[in-house]
Formats: sequence, structure tokens, C-alpha cells
Amino acid sequence: MPAEPEPAPGAARVAVPATPYAFEMDPARTALVIIDMQRDFLYPGGFGALLGNDVSMLLKVVEPLQAVLCLARAAGMAVIHTREGHRPDLADCPPSKLARGRLDTPIGAEGPNGRILIRGEEGHGIIEELAPVEGEIVLDKPGKGAFFATDLEHILRNAGITHLVVTGVTTEVCVHTTVREANDRGFECLVLSDCVGSYFAEFQEVGLKMIAAQGGIFGWVTPSPEFIAAVEPSVPLSAVARDRSLSS
Amino acid sequence: MPAEPEPAPGAARVAVPATPYAFEMDPARTALVIIDMQRDFLYPGGFGALLGNDVSMLLKVVEPLQAVLCLARAAGMAVIHTREGHRPDLADCPPSKLARGRLDTPIGAEGPNGRILIRGEEGHGIIEELAPVEGEIVLDKPGKGAFFATDLEHILRNAGITHLVVTGVTTEVCVHTTVREANDRGFECLVLSDCVGSYFAEFQEVGLKMIAAQGGIFGWVTPSPEFIAAVEPSVPLSAVARDRSLSS
Repeated sequence: MPAEPEPAPGAARVAVPATPYAFEMDPARTALVIIDMQRDFLYPGGFGALLGNDVSMLLKVVEPLQAVLCLARAAGMAVIHTREGHRPDLADCPPSKLARGRLDTPIGAEGPNGRILIRGEEGHGIIEELAPVEGEIVLDKPGKGAFFATDLEHILRNAGITHLVVTGVTTEVCVHTTVREANDRGFECLVLSDCVGSYFAEFQEVGLKMIAAQGGIFGWVTPSPEFIAAVEPSVPLSAVARDRSLSS
Repeated sequence: MPAEPEPAPGAARVAVPATPYAFEMDPARTALVIIDMQRDFLYPGGFGALLGNDVSMLLKVVEPLQAVLCLARAAGMAVIHTREGHRPDLADCPPSKLARGRLDTPIGAEGPNGRILIRGEEGHGIIEELAPVEGEIVLDKPGKGAFFATDLEHILRNAGITHLVVTGVTTEVCVHTTVREANDRGFECLVLSDCVGSYFAEFQEVGLKMIAAQGGIFGWVTPSPEFIAAVEPSVPLSAVARDRSLSS
């Protein structure tokens, strides 16, 4: 019996229920962007914890984000993982960033997971639960915004990507800055509310409101189950089968 | 009797009391940035009002901002006025921005103050109370961030500017986006809390908190009287005299 024909790549147009209105996307032109899910921000002993933050606030994001990543892979979406951090010589770290906060353990200092926010160190790496796989983009960024001083825009344009599903940490810092940059550049952004996290409950709540206010001034917001339910039917059957055999 | 010698330009180092700690600046290396104080956002019949917003929330900013602008001029600080808006043919307006919000009167449509957010139209202009004077930079920007697709960074670097005092509207949209961009680029930013405005009280309050959180992750925040009191003593006496004769 011949295999059931799969939908042509890019043919599927998906409408994800969202605030302020449905986010329409084509999985073939949409990238899942996972911002800074690094040990330095999520694990005890990392930079975030050293700043006095409660990292458990961010760890809530991991499980729903794993489900979204799994679906994005099955749907053939581009996946981009970002990491905030610097070259070992700090040539790409503005003096202002290094001095800010007058920290005892600033960027580049030795911490429990190696030098803080330095590329190649243990703490700088992406957490195992969301480890990138072959074919996915890993993007090192020196700032809060993923477009600043990186090749992200170049990569997205080359791949014909027009829509971004944005996840990761922290909501009001690197997620927000990246969404703002993307929005100014004409990319349509959907933020998954349970897949972004902040150390501060108020910033999480109000940060999400700011995205979708005034008719979606920066983009759209929805919880991940809405995204998954909307995208799942567009996943090629062969990918589902492959995924099942991998997980069995 | 010979005139009293003035302090050499750039010699004055000023410490402005602020959150999370004092903002140290040299007026000769600091620019006052006034974001988007345009009729389209502040006046009845403009784009902001057509979106259903209460423009009186923004008008509160005008009076304190006038005092800051007056002082900045006397102190010889660079002054930069930004305007959000587009070319008449909309070549610089992403389709995503044009479509967003599904508005009855989108960007480029005819409104009571001319075509909405179009350069050269009445509504696009800066309000009279804060009109630029000769020698000040007027910067047209197509996005929320003043650095995106403009020559702002180029201008600041050429002028040796390292610090920005950021004011204008709206707090959580164009002010925030610009401060984030500036911060990633290594500029030190002080946001004057009563000289930035939002249509939404919650966004104003939490937006300001986000700037100074975690040791000043994006920068510093203080009310304008603190800024004025700190900078005033560094103003050359001749400028004060000139200002008095102008206002008499």
C-alpha cells in the first residue's frame, strides 16, 4: 500500500487562538526561538541565582517548553536557541554592562559553574532538557536582544522565516527585547505565556500584557496548549510515526 | 572686571541620585533624548486617541519635560528629538506594522491631523511646547526603537556621547525599546520618571521598575527634580544669564 501523501512543505496555514486575535502562521516560515535557557540563568550557583533571584520561577518553563520543542521538530519548524554570553577576553562586553550593579561576582568572574556568562563555560551552556540537536541554530548574543550584534536577521531572511514563536527567559528582559527588535524588523511574533519565565511574578504578568496591548503593539500571546493544538494537525504523519518510534 | 572663568566643557562630573544608585554623568558627554512627543500621540484626533487611548495620561509629561529641556540647553547638553513615522509611500513600514491591530484608520490613512504617522503631516510633528531649536537633532524613526534603521548610534558616537537621559512617550513602548537598544550598545541611560508617559498607569509603574531592577539591568530611574538639582550647579554662569535675559 502506498504511503499517504504528505502536505507540501509550507502549504499548511495555521491559526493559533491568541490575544489580541488569532496568530496566523505557516510552520515552514516560522521559527521557534528559545531564548537563553542556560544554566547560568536557571540553575543554582549560576549568574541569576548569584544576583539573589529565585531560579525556581524560571524552571517552571522547562516542561511546557519541551513539549513545544518536540512539536516544532515534528512540524519541521526552524529552531533557534540563543545564549547570552561573552568572549573569554570580554572584547564584546560593554564596560557599562561589566560595571552595572556593582556586583561581587560580575560577568567573567569565577563562579560555581565556571566563569560567569563566558562562552564555553559550563554555566553558559543550554540546559540538558532543551539541548539543541543537529540542524538547529545556536546563536551567541552579547546583549539582551538577539538581533543586536548577531547574524539572526541574516539567518531568518535566508531561511524565508517571517514568523517567530518566542520562548525562554527572562520575559521582561531578553524575551521582551528580542520581540521588540523582531517587531521593528517586520517579523510577526507569538509569545507562549507558559514558556517564558521571569524571576518576578509582576514582571511576568505585566510583561505579557505589554506585548499584546493596543491591538498587539509588539505581537501576540497565548499559552502553549493552544499553540500545540493548532499546529499538531499540520504535522506530517511520517514525522509523528518517527517521533513515536524514537520515544518507544 | 574680567568675567568669571567658566568650567571647561566636559569637566563637570555630576552624580544624580537615582534608583538603583547614583547616575554619574558628564553633561558634555550626555544627550537628552526626547522620544516621540508628537501630536499624533499627544493630541486629540491623533493616532493615539484614535486607538481609544486617554491622551491626558501623556500630557502630564509636558511641563516637567519643558523644565528639563530648558536646563539641558543651558548646560550645553546635546538634545535629540525623535519622531515615529513613515515615508509617504510607506516603503519603510513593514507590512506587519501596517496590518497589526486591524485598524479602521491605519498608518497612512487620512485623520483629523493629516495622514497618520506620515512624515511632514501635521500630526507627525513635535508639539509646540517642546519644539526643537537650531542645533538640535531631529531623528525620524520607522520603529519603536530609536536605533533601528536610523543614524542615531552614528550621531552619538561622532559626538562622543556615552550617557543618555531618556524622556518622552510611551514609557513601555518607544522609551523602553530605545533604552534596551542603547543599553545593549553600551550607553548608560537615565530615565526621568515624570518625563515619560504611558496611556496605562500599570505599564508606567511596572515599566519603570523593569528598567532599574536587578541592579539596573537596563539603566537608572529618577524624577526630574533630582536631575535638575544635580545638573544645575554645573551650568555655566553665562548660560544662566543668557537664559534669564531670554525669559525676561
